Amino acid sequence: MSHPSHSRKARQQENNRNPERENPAILFDLDGTLLDSNYEHVAAWRQALREEGLEIPDSRIHRCIGMSGRLLVRTLFAEKGKVAGPRMVDRLEKLHQRNFRKRISSVQPLPGARQILAFLSGRKIQWAIATGGDQKTVGQMIKPLRVPESSPVITADHVRHAKPSPDVFLEAAERLGFALSDCIVVGDSVWDLLGARRAKALGVGLLCGGYGAAELEQAGAYRVYKDPLDLLNHIGELGVQPT
Amino acid sequence: MSHPSHSRKARQQENNRNPERENPAILFDLDGTLLDSNYEHVAAWRQALREEGLEIPDSRIHRCIGMSGRLLVRTLFAEKGKVAGPRMVDRLEKLHQRNFRKRISSVQPLPGARQILAFLSGRKIQWAIATGGDQKTVGQMIKPLRVPESSPVITADHVRHAKPSPDVFLEAAERLGFALSDCIVVGDSVWDLLGARRAKALGVGLLCGGYGAAELEQAGAYRVYKDPLDLLNHIGELGVQPT
Repeated sequence: MSHPSHSRKARQQENNRNPERENPAILFDLDGTLLDSNYEHVAAWRQALREEGLEIPDSRIHRCIGMSGRLLVRTLFAEKGKVAGPRMVDRLEKLHQRNFRKRISSVQPLPGARQILAFLSGRKIQWAIATGGDQKTVGQMIKPLRVPESSPVITADHVRHAKPSPDVFLEAAERLGFALSDCIVVGDSVWDLLGARRAKALGVGLLCGGYGAAELEQAGAYRVYKDPLDLLNHIGELGVQPT
Repeated sequence: MSHPSHSRKARQQENNRNPERENPAILFDLDGTLLDSNYEHVAAWRQALREEGLEIPDSRIHRCIGMSGRLLVRTLFAEKGKVAGPRMVDRLEKLHQRNFRKRISSVQPLPGARQILAFLSGRKIQWAIATGGDQKTVGQMIKPLRVPESSPVITADHVRHAKPSPDVFLEAAERLGFALSDCIVVGDSVWDLLGARRAKALGVGLLCGGYGAAELEQAGAYRVYKDPLDLLNHIGELGVQPT
């Protein structure tokens, strides 16, 4: 990790003097964490892989959602003893994107997603979205979440490496002027928790993306909640003042 | 449980004298265990529930796949603080069935499903399918599995109570002339393992339905394998002679 820039250092010093910044900042994953989109991603990838002649069980695709598309394709090909070259990766990512965009209109926020974001904003607790999705798709998807200007939305387009690299979390923390050790990463996949661990942030898991609790705990989740609503109801457990 | 019928007792006595029956019998769940159909069931239920105005996260629906439709509807309604009356249950089951049937053509066997069934038949090890699905849908779905006459296919239509009641396993064991304590139940959901436990059969879990390993182990799985192929490769661990 590089030295903090002057502006970041200045912001961090300011934070230390600001009682409103006594709370940690919260970095949310998007798919499966705030939006009920994982199973639509599985269907979109299955269709894409099938178009290229690869049969992969849905549960295996599911366990790769939250990785970058490139890593997902390479991982699933490798499991079949195949190698996905750059053109194949590119073609499959485009097919997935096309299939997924057709499904966006049926994606709904998860229980409590809007409420927890409004709660944090109302209490001036800093938060951001840090996702592996592309800018265009994410822009369409987050409309129902009503994200205010003050909350950055970091996508794969902002960083060199998508999850499980910690780059999106690093970028999000920097935008908020927080050290990563003062951030909580909330995600539904082991890739979020691996990224959190590599970024030295506290990881919290949500079950609403379809992973089991033990999978998230084994990946390093400090706590596991059912969905954003359950997280909001237990926010004190994360060191956030609930009222 | 009632006393065994004379014919069953006779068959069991015959089994004890038959060296081919030294191996246990294997009772397979269908959805998520032999066929990659769970995520299609999730989509079909989501669509049905949405048509009746109920928004339920996909991961919650997923965790109820393998229950009877009636129990699934009642459970998901109860979680929302609502009560599903018999008419609502009936309407939702019909909607789900209609939605799912449109998707059957895209359902594929899971890796190793055909191989393990052929292996067992070839070695004259008794096996059956014991599923919560309805006769008509199951009849269409199992075609690619090439089930021989000698292997019974027990559906919800054959029993009074679907899983997690042990009725389908009891019926399957009876048809094979085996005591349930000499049967292995192979399933992907905690409902299969709960049924196995209630039936005093040995439960084995498969990950290919999308549950996590710890979820299956906590529900009583003696072993957890990736998919039918992985089970076939480790069949000796279940006390079945592999060659």
